[in-house]
Amino acid sequence: MENSDNMVYRLGSGCELSDIVTGNVYEVKVQGFAKFGTFVYLNSHIKGLIHISNVKTEHNEGDKLLVLVRNIRDNGNIDLEEVTIRNYEVSNVACKRPQTRLGDLRSRVGNNVSLDVEIAQIKQTSGPTIFTLIDETGKENAAAFIEAGKRAYPEVELGDIVHVSGEVMMRNDQLQLEVSHMEVLSEEDKNLVLKRIEKALDDRAYPEDLPFMIESEVLEMLKPAMKDVAFHIRKAIFTNQPVILRHHADADGIVAAVSVERAITSLIRDEGGDPDLESHLFKRAPSKAPFYEIEDVTRDLDYALKDNIKYGQKLPLILMMDNGSTEEDEPSYRMAKVYDLTILVVDHHHPDESTDAFLTAHVNPYHVGGDFGVTAGMLGAELARMIYPPVEESIRHFPAVAAVGDRSEAPERAKYLQLVEDTYSEDDCKDIALALDYEQFWLRFNDGREIVKDILNLNDNTGRHKRLVSLLVAEANLAIKEQIETSMPHVERSVLENDARLFTIDVEIYAHRFTFPPPGKTSGEIHDILCKENEGSPVVTLGVGPDFAVIRSRGVLMNIPRMVRELREEIIGGGVNGGGHLVVGSIKFVEGMRDTVIAGLIEKIGKFPIE
Amino acid sequence: MENSDNMVYRLGSGCELSDIVTGNVYEVKVQGFAKFGTFVYLNSHIKGLIHISNVKTEHNEGDKLLVLVRNIRDNGNIDLEEVTIRNYEVSNVACKRPQTRLGDLRSRVGNNVSLDVEIAQIKQTSGPTIFTLIDETGKENAAAFIEAGKRAYPEVELGDIVHVSGEVMMRNDQLQLEVSHMEVLSEEDKNLVLKRIEKALDDRAYPEDLPFMIESEVLEMLKPAMKDVAFHIRKAIFTNQPVILRHHADADGIVAAVSVERAITSLIRDEGGDPDLESHLFKRAPSKAPFYEIEDVTRDLDYALKDNIKYGQKLPLILMMDNGSTEEDEPSYRMAKVYDLTILVVDHHHPDESTDAFLTAHVNPYHVGGDFGVTAGMLGAELARMIYPPVEESIRHFPAVAAVGDRSEAPERAKYLQLVEDTYSEDDCKDIALALDYEQFWLRFNDGREIVKDILNLNDNTGRHKRLVSLLVAEANLAIKEQIETSMPHVERSVLENDARLFTIDVEIYAHRFTFPPPGKTSGEIHDILCKENEGSPVVTLGVGPDFAVIRSRGVLMNIPRMVRELREEIIGGGVNGGGHLVVGSIKFVEGMRDTVIAGLIEKIGKFPIE
Amino acid sequence: MENSDNMVYRLGSGCELSDIVTGNVYEVKVQGFAKFGTFVYLNSHIKGLIHISNVKTEHNEGDKLLVLVRNIRDNGNIDLEEVTIRNYEVSNVACKRPQTRLGDLRSRVGNNVSLDVEIAQIKQTSGPTIFTLIDETGKENAAAFIEAGKRAYPEVELGDIVHVSGEVMMRNDQLQLEVSHMEVLSEEDKNLVLKRIEKALDDRAYPEDLPFMIESEVLEMLKPAMKDVAFHIRKAIFTNQPVILRHHADADGIVAAVSVERAITSLIRDEGGDPDLESHLFKRAPSKAPFYEIEDVTRDLDYALKDNIKYGQKLPLILMMDNGSTEEDEPSYRMAKVYDLTILVVDHHHPDESTDAFLTAHVNPYHVGGDFGVTAGMLGAELARMIYPPVEESIRHFPAVAAVGDRSEAPERAKYLQLVEDTYSEDDCKDIALALDYEQFWLRFNDGREIVKDILNLNDNTGRHKRLVSLLVAEANLAIKEQIETSMPHVERSVLENDARLFTIDVEIYAHRFTFPPPGKTSGEIHDILCKENEGSPVVTLGVGPDFAVIRSRGVLMNIPRMVRELREEIIGGGVNGGGHLVVGSIKFVEGMRDTVIAGLIEKIGKFPIE
Repeated sequence: MENSDNMVYRLGSGCELSDIVTGNVYEVKVQGFAKFGTFVYLNSHIKGLIHISNVKTEHNEGDKLLVLVRNIRDNGNIDLEEVTIRNYEVSNVACKRPQTRLGDLRSRVGNNVSLDVEIAQIKQTSGPTIFTLIDETGKENAAAFIEAGKRAYPEVELGDIVHVSGEVMMRNDQLQLEVSHMEVLSEEDKNLVLKRIEKALDDRAYPEDLPFMIESEVLEMLKPAMKDVAFHIRKAIFTNQPVILRHHADADGIVAAVSVERAITSLIRDEGGDPDLESHLFKRAPSKAPFYEIEDVTRDLDYALKDNIKYGQKLPLILMMDNGSTEEDEPSYRMAKVYDLTILVVDHHHPDESTDAFLTAHVNPYHVGGDFGVTAGMLGAELARMIYPPVEESIRHFPAVAAVGDRSEAPERAKYLQLVEDTYSEDDCKDIALALDYEQFWLRFNDGREIVKDILNLNDNTGRHKRLVSLLVAEANLAIKEQIETSMPHVERSVLENDARLFTIDVEIYAHRFTFPPPGKTSGEIHDILCKENEGSPVVTLGVGPDFAVIRSRGVLMNIPRMVRELREEIIGGGVNGGGHLVVGSIKFVEGMRDTVIAGLIEKIGKFPIE
Repeated sequence: MENSDNMVYRLGSGCELSDIVTGNVYEVKVQGFAKFGTFVYLNSHIKGLIHISNVKTEHNEGDKLLVLVRNIRDNGNIDLEEVTIRNYEVSNVACKRPQTRLGDLRSRVGNNVSLDVEIAQIKQTSGPTIFTLIDETGKENAAAFIEAGKRAYPEVELGDIVHVSGEVMMRNDQLQLEVSHMEVLSEEDKNLVLKRIEKALDDRAYPEDLPFMIESEVLEMLKPAMKDVAFHIRKAIFTNQPVILRHHADADGIVAAVSVERAITSLIRDEGGDPDLESHLFKRAPSKAPFYEIEDVTRDLDYALKDNIKYGQKLPLILMMDNGSTEEDEPSYRMAKVYDLTILVVDHHHPDESTDAFLTAHVNPYHVGGDFGVTAGMLGAELARMIYPPVEESIRHFPAVAAVGDRSEAPERAKYLQLVEDTYSEDDCKDIALALDYEQFWLRFNDGREIVKDILNLNDNTGRHKRLVSLLVAEANLAIKEQIETSMPHVERSVLENDARLFTIDVEIYAHRFTFPPPGKTSGEIHDILCKENEGSPVVTLGVGPDFAVIRSRGVLMNIPRMVRELREEIIGGGVNGGGHLVVGSIKFVEGMRDTVIAGLIEKIGKFPIE
Repeated sequence: MENSDNMVYRLGSGCELSDIVTGNVYEVKVQGFAKFGTFVYLNSHIKGLIHISNVKTEHNEGDKLLVLVRNIRDNGNIDLEEVTIRNYEVSNVACKRPQTRLGDLRSRVGNNVSLDVEIAQIKQTSGPTIFTLIDETGKENAAAFIEAGKRAYPEVELGDIVHVSGEVMMRNDQLQLEVSHMEVLSEEDKNLVLKRIEKALDDRAYPEDLPFMIESEVLEMLKPAMKDVAFHIRKAIFTNQPVILRHHADADGIVAAVSVERAITSLIRDEGGDPDLESHLFKRAPSKAPFYEIEDVTRDLDYALKDNIKYGQKLPLILMMDNGSTEEDEPSYRMAKVYDLTILVVDHHHPDESTDAFLTAHVNPYHVGGDFGVTAGMLGAELARMIYPPVEESIRHFPAVAAVGDRSEAPERAKYLQLVEDTYSEDDCKDIALALDYEQFWLRFNDGREIVKDILNLNDNTGRHKRLVSLLVAEANLAIKEQIETSMPHVERSVLENDARLFTIDVEIYAHRFTFPPPGKTSGEIHDILCKENEGSPVVTLGVGPDFAVIRSRGVLMNIPRMVRELREEIIGGGVNGGGHLVVGSIKFVEGMRDTVIAGLIEKIGKFPIE
C-alpha cells in the first residue's frame, strides 16, 4: 500500500505508547530482525513490529523507514506496515506532558512517572546503579539495572540534566524509582529545565530575613555577606553537595562551628536525609594551625576525591570559620581551586585583601569597620539561624561563650551576655569556654562531637552538662597552676630602653611539654600574672621555644608583622617568619639562629613608643 | 438506650481484640471524627467506631465516654453505641495473658506474640527502627516502621521496659519481631518486670564456683572480688553493653587482657551474637602509659558517645587490667564518672586507697596481703575461667608466661609453671613473654589481635606459633645486643656515701631512639648486667633522658615515691613528678632543671641504708 | 528374602537420586531409628528408609548394611529392604557426570548444578555463610545456610577443593549458588581437580609475549623475571588473593606502583569484581623508609590476619617496588615468611644476594648487568603491560617521568622520552616528577590515589592535570628557594687532604623542619648548587642532623658502605649504621657521639682518591 497522505510524524523521546495514533505514519529506525518480521524503534524506547508480510523493502539495522500504525494491541504490541512516500512533510511530536516532581513521588507509588531532574550522585552498587535525583521540590533515589555491578546509563554523568521514566516503588520501606528509561536532555531542553530547577532551588536556598538576636551596627552591615554564606550552604544541602567545615580549635572557633553544624545537620534531617549518609554530607574538622595548612587541604582533597569515585559524590564546599582570611591560607586555597571548590569564610581575624580572590563569600567584621571583638562565635550563631531558624533556641548562649572565650571588648559582648543572663552567668560562660579549650586539647584534632555538645549543653541533659563543665574547669585550673608554679621561677626580667618591662621564659625547657596548657597558653597565663604584678607599666612577655617565640604585650605600641618583616630581611639565614595581630603574635626561625633572632627582636621591641 | 446494668469495663493495654466482650460496656477515649461517626480508643491501641446514628452527646477529642459493644466484625471492626449510665462500677480488665519469652521466639515463627522486655539498643536504619530486646532468656531484634528513616516509637528510650506485640518473622534468614505495638510500661508494671528480668539476669550472670587452677592463699582471698568482676562482665554481655578493656602494654598486661578477651568473645558467640556486631561489643586497647591517660579516656568517650548516637548503643563498661589502681588514673576516672560509666580494675600494682571511690569492683593482691608477684596475667586467666569456664584449656599456660614476664617471685609462679611443664618449659614461657614485649613495641598501641594470638598459641597452629616466637625472640635479642653495645661504653660509674654503686647512662644521646628496646627496657637490661658484674654490692642504675630518669636498684632500701615528693618540694620550678614502686620507678622534671634534679636525686639515694 | 545375585553397589558422593537403580543392592550406613523403621545413608547425602517390616537384623547407628531398593517414590522417598548376602562383589558407582563450570552459571539460572571448585573466601554473615568459589573459568559466590550467623559446613576451609551442588539463583540482581550440598573431595579426587584448575589458571595467568615499548638489552634480559612477577600477580587476582603493593615514596616509586595499580584494578574490574571488594583485594602503600620497616610489615600483617578472620580472605601477596632488594628488608621478610607470604620484588637498587632466599620472584637490572638507570618506574610500566596490556595507552609517559625523576643516565632514558615527546616534553616530565615528590610529602604516607592520578594525567582531564602540576611545581620551587636561602649562609667549607671540597650543613638547626623539602632533599639541593659553584672540583656535601648525616658527592671515589662498616668497628659506643650506594648514602649514630663520628667520617672521605 502506498500512502497518499504526505504527513509523517517523528515521535519525541518523551512520548509514551498512548501518544501513538493508529493510522498515522511514523519515521522509525530498524532495531533488528526475527523470523516473523522486523523490529523498529518509534522513538528511543518504544518498539514495534513490521510483520514479514508487511515488509516492503530490504534494509539493515539502523536504517530509517516509514511505517503506518495498523493496530496497537492491549498488551502494548504495535503492528506496523512499511510504507513508501515520495514527498512528505515531517512533524515532530514533542509530547511535553505534565511531568511529576520528586516531591510528589510519595503519592505515586505503583505508578509510572516521567521527570526532568538533575543528577546529584551516582553510586554503583554490586547490584543496580543508584542515581540520586534532585529537582526544585526535593531529592530521591532511582535504581537502574543492566547487569550486576555494571554501571547503567554510563553516558549520564554527575550534574547532568536528564529525562527519566520509571515506576515508583517501595523497596525495604524506602521510596525508589525503578528506572525504565533515562536520557540526557539536549542542550536546549537542558537549559530550560536547569533554569527552572536552579531558579526554584535558589529561591528555596535564599535565607529568610530574620532580625539578629541583638542590636549591632556591625552585624547589620554584615547581613548581606552572611546571607550569601547561608545561601550557599543551604543550596549545597538541597543539592546533595558535601560540606567540610574547617575551624580554629579554640573556644570561639568551636562555638562558631558547632552552631553551624547544628543548623546543617538539622536541615539535612528535615530534608529526609538518609541517616547513614549524614556523615558523608557534613564533616567538621578542627584545624591544628590557625590557618588552612597544606597538609589539611591535602587530606580533605584526598578523601573528597576518593568519595567522589567510590560514592559518586559531588566535590565538597569548604567553609572556614574563625580562620581562613589571611595570606597564610592561600597556598591551600590554590590547591582547592584546581578542583574548582567553592570556599566560604566566616572569620574575625584581620583579612588580607589578596585572599578574597579565592572566596565565593566572606564574612568579616573588618570589612565593615568592625574588629575581632565581633567574634566568629557571634557570627556563627547568627549564621546558623539564617541556615535553619529553629536552631536559635538551643544556641542562644553560644555568642556569650565566644565573647568571653575570645576576650571580646566589643559592645556586642555585653548584649549577648545579657541575652542569656537568666540561664548562663558571665562566669558560666567563662567556664564553658575554658572547658572547651581544655577538652579540645585532649581531643587533639578530633571533633569530639558528643562531648563538645555536652559542654555546650546541647544534649538536653543539663545535669550532665554542669558536672562535665565543672570537672573540666577544675582539671584545667589544676594543670595551669602546676605549669605556672614550674615556669614562673625561671622567668627572666629586664627593663628595655623604652621603659617596658620585658619578661622572657623558655617554654621548652622550663615547662611541662605535651600537656595542657600548651606553650602559647602557658605564655599567656604568665603574661596575665605579670601584667597584674606590674600594674601601670608597659609589659612584654616572650615565651621562647627552640625555633619559635610567642609575643604578648600590654601598653607598647608594637607592630609585630613589621618586626617580623624587618628581622627576616636583616638576619641572613634566620629563616624568620610569622605574624599575627599588631601586639599579639608569634615568630618562627631556625633553631641555630635563635639567640640572634631573639636579641634582634628585643632590640626592636625596646624602640617602640609606649602608650 | 439507657443501660440498666451498672458494670463498666476499662480495657488494659495488654488486651487484644479477642478480650472484648460483645454486649459489655467500656470506658473509651475519643480519637477523632469522620462524616459517618466518631472513632474511639478502647485501650492504647484498639480502635472502634460509634456510627453517627449511635452518637448520643457532643464531645471533643480526648473526651472519655461509655460505649456498648454491639458487634465485632470478621475484619476486626468494632461497632459501638454510646451509652450513659448514672451510677456505675468500674472493673479493670488486665488481660495478663501468659507472655512469650525471647528464648522461645524461634519456635513461634509466623505467630503473633506479646512480651515484656528491656530495650538494649535502638538503631535507626534508613528503613525501619531496629530495637534490640532483652529479657532473662536472651536477646533478639525487633523492627518497627512508621516512615523510611524516621524513628518509630520515639517515646521509647534505651533502657526502658516495654510491652511489645508483633509477628515473629524470618527475614534474610534472621529471626525478627515485626512490631505492631510497643508501649513503655507504667512505673508499677515496670518495676515488676524489671525485677523479674534483673533477678534472672543476675542469676545467670553470677559465675559458678570453680576451684582455681592452682592452690593459692592470695587467690582464695581474692575470689569474692574476682567473682564480682566476672559478674559485671557477664551481665554486660547478656545485656548488650559494650566492654572496653584497657591494659598495660607489656607481656603481663597482654596475657591478662587476652585471657579475658578470649572469654568474652566466646561468650558473645555462644549468646548468638551477630558477628558483625562483635567488634562493637568488645574492644581491647593497650595503653601507652602505665595508667589511664586523659587522652585515652577522651578517645574512648568520644567513640562511645558517637556509637551511642549512631547505633543506639549503651555506654560501655570499662575494664582496666594490669593498670588502673593508682591516683594517676583518677583524672580519667573523674571524666568517665560524668557519664556514669562502670569501672572495674584487675591490677597488681600497689593501689591508692582514694581510687576505690571510682570503682565498682577491684581485684588487687595488696588488698589481701599479697603483692605484685601475683601478677595481672595470673588474675586475668583465673578471671577468664569465671567468665567462661571452657576457656581454660587454651589459656592454661598464660599465667606461667605472665609470671616469668613480670619476674614474679611469689609462690604462685612455680605452681603455674608446673601446671604446664609438659607442654611449655620455663624457657618457652620466657620466650613467649619477650616475643610479646617485642611485638607490642612494633604494634605501637594497636591490639594486633591475631599476631598476639599466634604468639600465645591460641590459633590451633603450634608450628606457626613456634616459628613466630622463635623469630621474634631472635630479633629482640639482636636489638638488645646492639643497644647494649652502643650504650654500655657510656655508663658513668661512681660510689655513693652509703657504698652503693651508682651507674648513670644517658639513654637519650647514647642509645638508639625510636626502636626496640625503648629507654626503660634499655635501662633495665643495663642494670641487669651491672648487677651481675657487681655481685654482692648494692647497685643503683639511672637511665637519664632529657626530662625523665628511670631508676632501678638492688640492695638499697630506697623509697622512690618519698624522694620524688621531697624533690618536688625542695626544687622550686623543677616540675618534679613521678613514682612507682619503692625500689623501681621513674621521675620526671622539666628539661632545664635536669642537672639540679639528678644531683638532688643522687644525694638522696646515697643516704638510704643498704640491705 | 535372601538375594541370589552377588553384586553389591557402593554409591559415590557425586551420585544423585536418579543414579539409583530399583532392584539393585547397595551398601548403606545406618543413620537413625524411627518407630516405623530405620533410616540409612546410601551415600553422603541420600537417605532411604527400611520399613520395620523389612528390617532383618539388629543394628546400631553407623553400622553398615546391605539393602535392596524396592521402590523410589515420586516424592523422592526410597523404600529399602534389608538383605544378607554371604559372598558378594562390590562395585563403586562413581557418577562422574558432566559438571558445570562457574563461567557457565549465568546461563543456568533456576537450574540445579554440580561443580568441583576451589574455596577462595569464606565470609560468615549474620545470615548465611558466603563461599567464594573459583575454577578455571572464573569466580562466583555461593550461599549456604544452617542457622543465622552460624558457619555452614565448618569442615570446609579456605583453599579446599570441594564438590558442591545447588540451585543457581539471582538475588538482588546478583548471581548466587544456593548450596544444597558441599563436600571436601577425597585426596585422590582433589588432586585431579586441583591439577585441572591449577593448570587452566596457570595458563590464563601466564602473560602474553609483548614487545617492550622501547628497545633495551637490559629489559630483554629481564623479561623472564618480569613475566614471572606478572604471572604471580595475575594468578593472585584470578584466585581472589589480596595484593599489598609497598613502594618507595618518591616519583620513581610512585610511577612504578601506579602503573601496576592501574593494571591490577583494571583486571579486577574485567573479572567482574564486586566494586565494594576492590579495596579489599588491592592496597597501595607508600613506605616511610627506603626499605620494608618492621613497623610496616607489622601493620600489614595485623590487618591481613584480621581480614582473614573477619572476611575469610586469603593472606596477601606482597609486591615491593623501588624497594625491597637489600639486607635491610630481611627482618620484615622473616616476619612475612612465618605466615608463608609470597613476596615479589621489582627494584633497581643494588641487591644483596642473601635477600633472594625470601623472594618468589625478583626483577632487578643488576641481575643482568644493568644498573639503577633502568628505574623502577620503567620496569613498573612494562610490567603493568604484561599484567594487563590495554593499560599501555594511559601510562606510556610514566617511564619518562621516572627517568628524569630518578636522574637516570641509562640509554633507556632517551628512548622513553622520545616515545612521548609529542605529548610530554622533558620539562613536562620533570615537572610531573617534582609535583609527585612535593605532593607525596604532604600526603605523608597515604596513597592519595586520585590526586596522584591527576598529577599523572590518568583521569581524562588534561586541563586539571596541567593546572595541578603547574601549581605544585610553583609551590615546591618556592619552598626550596626559602629553604636554600635559610640554609646556604650556614654552610661550612673546607678542603680535604685529597683536595675535595667539603661542605657541611647542619640541617637540623639551620633549616626549616617538618616542611618541604625534608633534610635529605635539602642536602641534595645544596649539593647541586655547590657542584655548580665548584665546577671541575671534587665536591662532598654533608647534611648533618643530630643522629644522622646525609652524604652526597661528586668526583670522589668513595665507598660509603665500607666507611660505615669501619666507623662502626672503630668507634666504640657510636651505634654507627647506615649505607646506601657507593657515593650517595647516609649514616646514623647516637646523638652523643655525633662529633666523633663526623670527624671520623671526614677523615676517611679525605683519603679516597679523586676521579
